[in-house]
Amino acid sequence: MRRTSFASMNCSVARTLEVVGEWWTMLIVREAFFGVRRFDSMQQRLGIARNVLATRLQSLVDHGILERRRYQERPERFEYRLTEKGLDLYPVLVAMMRWGDRWTVGEDGPPVTLLHQPCGNETTPMTTCSACGEALLARDMRARTRAAAGPSAPGA
Amino acid sequence: MRRTSFASMNCSVARTLEVVGEWWTMLIVREAFFGVRRFDSMQQRLGIARNVLATRLQSLVDHGILERRRYQERPERFEYRLTEKGLDLYPVLVAMMRWGDRWTVGEDGPPVTLLHQPCGNETTPMTTCSACGEALLARDMRARTRAAAGPSAPGA
Repeated sequence: MRRTSFASMNCSVARTLEVVGEWWTMLIVREAFFGVRRFDSMQQRLGIARNVLATRLQSLVDHGILERRRYQERPERFEYRLTEKGLDLYPVLVAMMRWGDRWTVGEDGPPVTLLHQPCGNETTPMTTCSACGEALLARDMRARTRAAAGPSAPGA
Repeated sequence: MRRTSFASMNCSVARTLEVVGEWWTMLIVREAFFGVRRFDSMQQRLGIARNVLATRLQSLVDHGILERRRYQERPERFEYRLTEKGLDLYPVLVAMMRWGDRWTVGEDGPPVTLLHQPCGNETTPMTTCSACGEALLARDMRARTRAAAGPSAPGA
């Protein structure tokens, strides 16, 4: 079954899924955040078919999330590094990780914990308000759709 | 091509993708957060095939993310509501939304803005440290892997 292209939907969630909504994509991004840069390491760690990995990496490069850099000349070898756009996926990744920690892990607890080096503590990523700093809860939020008119919509 | 089941991977990102990593799933969850509860409304808004929507809704019910409730007896009619586990996907959704706002929208700006009702301000969801409250940046983080299984953090 072919999916609809979400890029045409006027919704940032849909457009994000258009880029990273494929099964393997976020796991490749996860590997990149773990510092894994080379094709063979990714392939081994993910247990993914080589052709699938090649296609996914190419798509991430095409979308400007990974950058392909040559690190050796003879023979030519390349590695993949997160761009600024890719690094900015960190909140998506940790939000997924946190949800998985809470709802999918067993008695052993979270398989990976995060250390926030500047403060030196083990951290649980929180989603907070840019204005008041409090935790954002779904029930406290109201979504406003911008009118067709454009950026200077009501409420601005 | 059949994908691998990620549930067996000892990683909370992988396990989360196992549940919500399908193309349509997060958009159905988005609709639920927008307050859309009925099959026909979802179907219309998403432009999704009825059989695909039915399968996805069933999967979300099976995973305990949506709850199916009868709201009318004759004829019997049901609606879908987010459970606590479903509501807890809000940080994943807003993280995707924020990334999409930043990297995929054009000059018109974000199609949807969020109002944080307790403080009364338009908000940009931030990912912050539960210990010190500062914004979490990928470069400041260190991942620690519990036990032997699963991905290890290089450089750690």
